[in-house]
Amino acid sequence: MSAVAAKPILYSYFRSSCSWRVRIALALKGISYDLVPVNLVKDGGQQFSAEFKALNPMKQVPALKIDGITLSQSLAIIHYLEETRPNPSLLPQDPKKRAQVRMIADHIVSGIQPLQNLGVLKQIGERKMEWAQNYISSGFQALEQILQHTAGRYCVGDEVSMADLCLVPQVANAERFKVDMGPYPTITRINKALLELEAFKVSHPCRQPDTPAELRA
Amino acid sequence: MSAVAAKPILYSYFRSSCSWRVRIALALKGISYDLVPVNLVKDGGQQFSAEFKALNPMKQVPALKIDGITLSQSLAIIHYLEETRPNPSLLPQDPKKRAQVRMIADHIVSGIQPLQNLGVLKQIGERKMEWAQNYISSGFQALEQILQHTAGRYCVGDEVSMADLCLVPQVANAERFKVDMGPYPTITRINKALLELEAFKVSHPCRQPDTPAELRA
Repeated sequence: MSAVAAKPILYSYFRSSCSWRVRIALALKGISYDLVPVNLVKDGGQQFSAEFKALNPMKQVPALKIDGITLSQSLAIIHYLEETRPNPSLLPQDPKKRAQVRMIADHIVSGIQPLQNLGVLKQIGERKMEWAQNYISSGFQALEQILQHTAGRYCVGDEVSMADLCLVPQVANAERFKVDMGPYPTITRINKALLELEAFKVSHPCRQPDTPAELRA
Repeated sequence: MSAVAAKPILYSYFRSSCSWRVRIALALKGISYDLVPVNLVKDGGQQFSAEFKALNPMKQVPALKIDGITLSQSLAIIHYLEETRPNPSLLPQDPKKRAQVRMIADHIVSGIQPLQNLGVLKQIGERKMEWAQNYISSGFQALEQILQHTAGRYCVGDEVSMADLCLVPQVANAERFKVDMGPYPTITRINKALLELEAFKVSHPCRQPDTPAELRA
């Protein structure tokens, strides 16, 4: 079937931390793809267009067209890539270590990011900076403690995992919201180590086709 | 090792939708466990106690002590149970169907529940009812559309999956927040079918050791 052989299409926004997670996975696994930018702020948000809504009723990026289907939700997409393109693996072999990876990933994906995303902050209004800082700080406090038990060079041991794909974009959000990273030396150390890897560099928000000129690096 | 043989301990709150997800998984897989209630409202929230924080730095239920480790985050726990106690399976065999299951589960777990949980609503103050209704309704609108492509008797085909474990507790939250379920006939139908299953009944918030007498059924 031609649909199966077609190049995957990633619907992405340069600054979306959820899109970045998937861009890292695609880069790590060496999956070539086309990128269609969806600007979450222009025209009141292009994710709300009838065209995009037909593609993803959740009206969110990322969405990935692959193997004849369209998937959304970053971790569901990453798990699909892991199960269909297993090398290099983004999960350890040991079930307990896999559980630690997923616990950290879910903590970020469900416990931190949703509370500081664009749509929610719009609802919060003028308190939004403080709101975002509080949720990120409180999430990072817990994460810093958890990493004491799980981390090696990266979030869980010395291999890059799904947890790391969630960590780096969340730290970038923390920096945007001017969260004091002083109390989180382990998060800071791991983030720095990950940003040295090529897959994290090429997928970075400052190097996307839709990155505005003034934010390019 | 005795730790491996010990009965799992679930830290749970009767009304927590995230705890209910795990209670369903344990029931479906026939895993016997002890339950320790953590009252999220009494004493300003028992999850904030030093004792509980040492157990789960995320200060949330559920947490599960099992096989010598303590896990948190409901989907991470459920994945661990799936990988170590695979029968009955809560994921289809086909990778595309697995992706649909995870997409629906993540949509609820990251896209709906975090925005209407107790801690967030406390921050929102008097607008909290409207806030919760808006996020649940908007999430259910998307979900209703997605289910048109995935549902059989349950969320994805005719077998109970992780998606269903997330659906039923979220519908219960919707009912508590008096969300009009009229626009969501597929969600309503699947929820009803699931509530007929024994595992969903025994794990129900109205039948927990910490359910107050006036809410028992």
